[in-house]
Amino acid sequence: MKIILGIDPGTTILGFALYNATSAQGALVNIGTFRLNKIKDHADKLKAIFEKTLQLIEQYQPHILAIEAPFYGKNPQSMLKLGRAQGVVIAAAMYKGLEVFEYSPRKIKQSITGNGNASKEQVAAMLQNMKLIEENTHPLDATDALAVAVCHHLQNRITTAGQKFSGWEAFLTKNQDRILLF
Amino acid sequence: MKIILGIDPGTTILGFALYNATSAQGALVNIGTFRLNKIKDHADKLKAIFEKTLQLIEQYQPHILAIEAPFYGKNPQSMLKLGRAQGVVIAAAMYKGLEVFEYSPRKIKQSITGNGNASKEQVAAMLQNMKLIEENTHPLDATDALAVAVCHHLQNRITTAGQKFSGWEAFLTKNQDRILLF
Repeated sequence: MKIILGIDPGTTILGFALYNATSAQGALVNIGTFRLNKIKDHADKLKAIFEKTLQLIEQYQPHILAIEAPFYGKNPQSMLKLGRAQGVVIAAAMYKGLEVFEYSPRKIKQSITGNGNASKEQVAAMLQNMKLIEENTHPLDATDALAVAVCHHLQNRITTAGQKFSGWEAFLTKNQDRILLF
Repeated sequence: MKIILGIDPGTTILGFALYNATSAQGALVNIGTFRLNKIKDHADKLKAIFEKTLQLIEQYQPHILAIEAPFYGKNPQSMLKLGRAQGVVIAAAMYKGLEVFEYSPRKIKQSITGNGNASKEQVAAMLQNMKLIEENTHPLDATDALAVAVCHHLQNRITTAGQKFSGWEAFLTKNQDRILLF
């Protein structure tokens, strides 16, 4: 069984989803959020994020981590904190031997809805249309995490299905938003 | 034996130092740098930083990680990368059960030289005066890592030596730059 762990690593709410990518259709295994807003200290948040990520990996044994990774922001202080949260999630996955992929929010939206500027609500509605979630009642941080896992599966499915890429360079050109971390 | 692992987690060069803080005087155990400039991919750098940190912890069994942590910067993109590097180092230490402390560059300089605006060269010269390094020939990234370990020891020594703090709040007021992460 091939499980993808999707994570949207915010410093207030961490969204996560476990997605079974064994079949082309795929199926949801679990989805949820981990609230960090009651943890005042930034460092305690990092510790909580690290432990939650490890726990999800140990419980569901995913082979891939797909994270939503915004690269740009205006506030350097916020970006440092976000970078730390991402670093902690990535380190936990590395330690457990997962392959790590990151996707920009725009790439995820484009992959799921066909529109890189889609709203979070539109992404969630499409996941419902895909019959991955039964009702559109999950928090948007959770559906965002599922979206990045599904995005990875869709990217992977397209390439393994043998779309005619004219070699590795063309593949890279067409997949600039898809970044293999390790 | 109480060993402090000091790390200056840059994304080009990672400085590290192992410092034996068992005695008040303290002693150097090992010091060095880990060059990341030949690793082009940011993600491969993160993996290398994570593995190097784990290796140092396993080899020297430190009980504390002290990291130099600049909080401010102008470029959000650089801060995100720096945050990721910090997050990876912190996660490795957490996983191994170390206590983690971070100090601002200004606090470290002030603690070692008495001047928060001291140059890296002045910090290195003071470490030589303290007979922690024999010659001033180590890279400045390495002496910076030693400086943060010594800074933690000095902070700790002062408080355990019973300086008259008038309680926890006064201690916190006097030690705002000293942040216990976990």
